[in-house]
Amino acid sequence: MADQKKLVAEITSMDEDFTQWYTDVCIKADLIAYSHIKGFMVIKPYGYALWENMRDILDRRFKATGVQNVYMPLLIPESLLQKEGELVNGFAPEVAWVTAGGTEPLTERLAVRPTSETVFSDFYKDDVHSYRDLPRLYNQWCSVVRWEKETRPFLRSREFLWQEGHTIHATREEAEQRTQQMLNVYADFLAEDMAIPTIKGQKTDKEKFAGAESTYTVEALMHDGRALQSGTSHFFGQKFSKAYDITFTDRNNTLQYVWQTSWGATTRMIGAMIMVHGDNRGLVIPPHVAPVQVDIIPIQQRKEGVLEAARHMADVLSGFRVKVDDSDKSPGFKFAEQEMRGIPLRIEIGPRDIEAGTCVLVRRDTLEKTETPISGIENTVAEILDTMQKQMLEKARNHMEDLTFEAKTTEDFYRHFQSGRHGFVKAMWCGDPACEEKIKADLGVTSRCIPFEQEQISGTCVCCGKPAKKMVYWANAY
Amino acid sequence: MADQKKLVAEITSMDEDFTQWYTDVCIKADLIAYSHIKGFMVIKPYGYALWENMRDILDRRFKATGVQNVYMPLLIPESLLQKEGELVNGFAPEVAWVTAGGTEPLTERLAVRPTSETVFSDFYKDDVHSYRDLPRLYNQWCSVVRWEKETRPFLRSREFLWQEGHTIHATREEAEQRTQQMLNVYADFLAEDMAIPTIKGQKTDKEKFAGAESTYTVEALMHDGRALQSGTSHFFGQKFSKAYDITFTDRNNTLQYVWQTSWGATTRMIGAMIMVHGDNRGLVIPPHVAPVQVDIIPIQQRKEGVLEAARHMADVLSGFRVKVDDSDKSPGFKFAEQEMRGIPLRIEIGPRDIEAGTCVLVRRDTLEKTETPISGIENTVAEILDTMQKQMLEKARNHMEDLTFEAKTTEDFYRHFQSGRHGFVKAMWCGDPACEEKIKADLGVTSRCIPFEQEQISGTCVCCGKPAKKMVYWANAY
Repeated sequence: MADQKKLVAEITSMDEDFTQWYTDVCIKADLIAYSHIKGFMVIKPYGYALWENMRDILDRRFKATGVQNVYMPLLIPESLLQKEGELVNGFAPEVAWVTAGGTEPLTERLAVRPTSETVFSDFYKDDVHSYRDLPRLYNQWCSVVRWEKETRPFLRSREFLWQEGHTIHATREEAEQRTQQMLNVYADFLAEDMAIPTIKGQKTDKEKFAGAESTYTVEALMHDGRALQSGTSHFFGQKFSKAYDITFTDRNNTLQYVWQTSWGATTRMIGAMIMVHGDNRGLVIPPHVAPVQVDIIPIQQRKEGVLEAARHMADVLSGFRVKVDDSDKSPGFKFAEQEMRGIPLRIEIGPRDIEAGTCVLVRRDTLEKTETPISGIENTVAEILDTMQKQMLEKARNHMEDLTFEAKTTEDFYRHFQSGRHGFVKAMWCGDPACEEKIKADLGVTSRCIPFEQEQISGTCVCCGKPAKKMVYWANAY
Repeated sequence: MADQKKLVAEITSMDEDFTQWYTDVCIKADLIAYSHIKGFMVIKPYGYALWENMRDILDRRFKATGVQNVYMPLLIPESLLQKEGELVNGFAPEVAWVTAGGTEPLTERLAVRPTSETVFSDFYKDDVHSYRDLPRLYNQWCSVVRWEKETRPFLRSREFLWQEGHTIHATREEAEQRTQQMLNVYADFLAEDMAIPTIKGQKTDKEKFAGAESTYTVEALMHDGRALQSGTSHFFGQKFSKAYDITFTDRNNTLQYVWQTSWGATTRMIGAMIMVHGDNRGLVIPPHVAPVQVDIIPIQQRKEGVLEAARHMADVLSGFRVKVDDSDKSPGFKFAEQEMRGIPLRIEIGPRDIEAGTCVLVRRDTLEKTETPISGIENTVAEILDTMQKQMLEKARNHMEDLTFEAKTTEDFYRHFQSGRHGFVKAMWCGDPACEEKIKADLGVTSRCIPFEQEQISGTCVCCGKPAKKMVYWANAY
């Protein structure tokens, strides 16, 4: 057990310093390494396998709604980027510029894509002519670059992996519906596969995406009570189609501008997963996306028959992502490693177990131990993983509910955040961005969203006291 | 049939102008669109679905050999790129440089990765300490940018998609073995999945990768008799490990430099597929990688029961990638589209077929028609696709063999290429790069590889007449 304690001791306690705990887990669980290029990280095999699982599930969910994958150019000419003014203003401070190709300077600077609305718009122009060509439902998996000042693994980095969906439609209604549909895909994926509950709602004008008519978001709450925007879906109306001249002939043979959406989710979701489920022993990964679901650890593995039994069990469990840890480390060290890496289920099997025809199962989330017969193990494992997946969501939902408060008055609202408490605070808002700005300046708190499920907390704005228009979720956010 | 002829007429005949035929097929088969950014293309849904299938199969083949996926930074500081002199000299004319992040100029230029040996090397340094950490078998799927002057879809573009594998090992033998192993993975994938036969061999010093000790290649022959390098695998020895100080402690507790490899294959393979299998009706895609394997085309689809029968058949064939073309185009137009897109198998089903309990199958490669019972169709389709996959390889192999020649003398060699003939020419070489340069200057012909399977064509170099060291495959190449 000395080994185990040592490895665990290598990460800071989350209660002591949550930020340091987060970074420690990213590194010690082998998800990433810092590169020698500021703001850029290396995603290591374990982190990338996790991303692959997330990508594959999300990709299937997209395709089930008719979305098709494409690939668009990485570099965007400045003139193309500038056609839609709001977008370029929003991204200008964050763009990395290519100014030379080989030994020659370029006549026009090229942006490394920070997002691809402009390139898609440029493409649509030739891609669509008639209402028969609509809708177009495109998506790409790629990396983007945004020149952030402060960076943290997964949460904010100068390059990150994401998917960006881009669609165009014949009518406003259809485009608006698609915006909501894809938000629901994110919410369902986060809940069902990542075990992360979210609040669905609309961003205020101040917080919406540059160039969007409206932005919808799924907001999650981390273990420390701070919020994390975990996926966004944008309705652009006809802004881009007018700026880039994307028209089609409708059923009445009239020329119309298309209606446009985009929606994106990133490796940030890995950050959310770490901060929602992790504990002082490290990561806890939901079974659906875990690179390894079952870690079989032989006890006294040099004794006759032990390794064979462990390997036989792995064969029986081949329907799961399973590994046998037959390295020459001590069982205690292996336990600690499995816990650090958040592998959902550990199976301990030693000479005495084999004799008794049993083994010991340990769930990563609850650390609960069960002795169970080896015979029929595949059904037991299936049930436990299924239960674990559901209970992780329940636990996270309870945590979010426990940390969701209401503030009827300005005093209540300020007292909550000034006392150093976090969590979501539901409070009314008059609709004026000036109030959001004041709250941010005073408390560092931002409006996370105007939730679809509105409640009447009070009659007046929590900032200025004027009549309220909407209930808003407020929080400190990552 | 008028519609069909019209669509087919839209592509240039391959016998008339092979280059134009190629471009026409890329566009008309809906694989790509030109973007408005010179040298950058848009990979459209059909082209990307093809790439996804190729990627998934290759990825499984890599993982079966123990390879793990990772993700490395897109941007590389100039100083890091310069540590290994040969590599940077090789790529310097082709690098796109980022010089500003947001509104501020950078203190050091960053290269958009043209290849990632340097970033991996920088990472290995902290990743590996002991022989227990070796080997490391990494791969990444990403895009790279190389500032090419002349560009053509898939064959040569300023940005392309690829995978780059990077491995490090404790011994020279193990690294050399891995170089060969991955070359074999490419050759097997190309033969078994892409139905493209290749010649395996070593590049001459003149043609090898910048910084490599040796480069191995798989060379394919296109329909027009020109060669295409379709995958390469490099052995670096200790060049990078010495330049980047990548050391480990061996079993005897001695500090050693690691031995290194890299290997890559790109969307170029799609270009190879088009030019090996395509014909005057368009693409022909091998079943293993085809986005759609079976295209069911209802005849007289408005007649009662026809669409139902077609859809029922699609259900029965759900184990394949199948589509029902129920659009309101004419059957002739649908046939032409299916042929243009290279969908391996067409099933025609109309009222008379349904009554007779039969349908008509048409193979895309041979255009052979078979009437077959609807009952048991899933077995018939499985057999035909399997046969087609194998026969496409055979046909391509026969074509390559028919276009493989021997030249014993300088006169024979020069006469072959000066007469405008293409194909592989096997001829002896003294080992002097000056002879390669002379042949290239005189004929535009390059040494494709020193094949592993050597033959003794003659005793003297086909260029200078001095005693020969190796048999080389020569060709005009893309």
